[in-house]
Amino acid sequence: MRRQDTPKLVATVARLREEIVAARRGKRAIGFVPTMGALHEGHLSLVRAARNECDYTVVSIFVNPSQFGPGEDFSKYPRTLEADLDLLAGCGVDLAFVPAGEEVYRPGHDTWVEVGAAAEPLDGQCRPGHFRGVATAVLKLLNMVQPDAAYFGQKDYQQALVIRRMAADLDLPTAIRVCPIVREPDGLAMSSRNRYLTPAARQRAIVLWKSLQLAGELVEQGERDARTIAARMREVIEIAEDARIDYVALVDSETLQPVETIAGPTLAALAVKIENTRLIDNCILKSEE
Amino acid sequence: MRRQDTPKLVATVARLREEIVAARRGKRAIGFVPTMGALHEGHLSLVRAARNECDYTVVSIFVNPSQFGPGEDFSKYPRTLEADLDLLAGCGVDLAFVPAGEEVYRPGHDTWVEVGAAAEPLDGQCRPGHFRGVATAVLKLLNMVQPDAAYFGQKDYQQALVIRRMAADLDLPTAIRVCPIVREPDGLAMSSRNRYLTPAARQRAIVLWKSLQLAGELVEQGERDARTIAARMREVIEIAEDARIDYVALVDSETLQPVETIAGPTLAALAVKIENTRLIDNCILKSEE
Repeated sequence: MRRQDTPKLVATVARLREEIVAARRGKRAIGFVPTMGALHEGHLSLVRAARNECDYTVVSIFVNPSQFGPGEDFSKYPRTLEADLDLLAGCGVDLAFVPAGEEVYRPGHDTWVEVGAAAEPLDGQCRPGHFRGVATAVLKLLNMVQPDAAYFGQKDYQQALVIRRMAADLDLPTAIRVCPIVREPDGLAMSSRNRYLTPAARQRAIVLWKSLQLAGELVEQGERDARTIAARMREVIEIAEDARIDYVALVDSETLQPVETIAGPTLAALAVKIENTRLIDNCILKSEE
Repeated sequence: MRRQDTPKLVATVARLREEIVAARRGKRAIGFVPTMGALHEGHLSLVRAARNECDYTVVSIFVNPSQFGPGEDFSKYPRTLEADLDLLAGCGVDLAFVPAGEEVYRPGHDTWVEVGAAAEPLDGQCRPGHFRGVATAVLKLLNMVQPDAAYFGQKDYQQALVIRRMAADLDLPTAIRVCPIVREPDGLAMSSRNRYLTPAARQRAIVLWKSLQLAGELVEQGERDARTIAARMREVIEIAEDARIDYVALVDSETLQPVETIAGPTLAALAVKIENTRLIDNCILKSEE
């Protein structure tokens, strides 16, 4: 068994910069995994990817207020710092950056990053201002850490697309890596928000994955009509009695614009509230031609 | 006399990054002066400041389309590359970054930086979208060059304030330096746009500086009423027959909000069209108390 080193815990930007300068001095490539904590295997897969590619791994834990809308779950978002640090110790993380809110958004903060078309549909429509908050916070964290590579999960597909767009458009020196979704044995995509679910709702939540699987099967069987596939996906989701669908979308995997026919790589994406917990999931559908 | 080395001319971001990595390898501090070319003594004072503080000096020459509004002077903005490079050679600049438009804004560019209150009044009101274009281009250039310090002129006072706000809010690792206005012997602030003026208009353009001088004298004589001072400034400007005032403003030097009484450091700022050439100038008024 590998030695379980606790990562160095840093709470201020000034201390973080000192540590990064020291790490850089050793010509070490820096990998960065920004998180909101409540860590699970999905996050740990990102940490492992960073550890594989880089010499020095930084994980931030920061529940970013600016990406939550009014009435969303900012205040009740799970905060599990001790357990998180234990998990990171087990993965060989070098530094855990855990800033307080006012360390990140100082008084007078007044600058925002707006990504255009990629941030508009799907979660951009359901959660106005969400991606503006995400892009701004991620850019700030990238500027604090100045990593060689930063790691994001495919589960937040649109978020990853927005961040890739931002990184390209703003000429960031950081490589953006996107890693596969990690799922529970029954297929539910891992998410910090799964903790909100009662055991019964947790059972019902599997309809998200079931509907994505059905979409894949339909395409495999030759179905190409997006409307037909989406209708069948909705039927699967509605088996869960209290499911409320925010969207079931079949969109171009790069532009996120709706498709009528499955031709190129198509993203099947959904957002569903189960027992008031909003869950998202997605997969890429590929027609054989 | 010092040896006049021509700076290395680089046109692509990829080449630029290679040169910067090589310069960094020598542990050299990098100073950066972003310009739109048509260089004059104002720019050269920024270059000298960079040379004083840093070991390796980069100057960019890029007429940024996104900071010009429709009907503004983007297409006729003076482009004097050969003369510019000669001037930079005389100042010991190491690298001149001269990208084409499509090297900076690639197809699909869709990310913009918005600075809030500092970008709203004065030129923000007269030139909608101007500071969004400035902030985005400057952030891109800073990310390309990754300098230790970047140098801006006080002549574009609001621009410097917007960039300082952006740099603080986005946790940029670059120090932002703001250098004093450089003036012609008769007081006209140096500007690439002075070239637009006919000799007669060039003579009349001195009313900008004269009105700022008057403001300083009035404050020295004990006048504290902003409205009175602004009215006297307007009178001086209106001596130039064809002068059209965009604004004559007395504002808090940090918030750019109008003041009624000169108490703390107050910015006197003006934008005036002489013979259709829009000129700006400013100074800080300080009451003795």
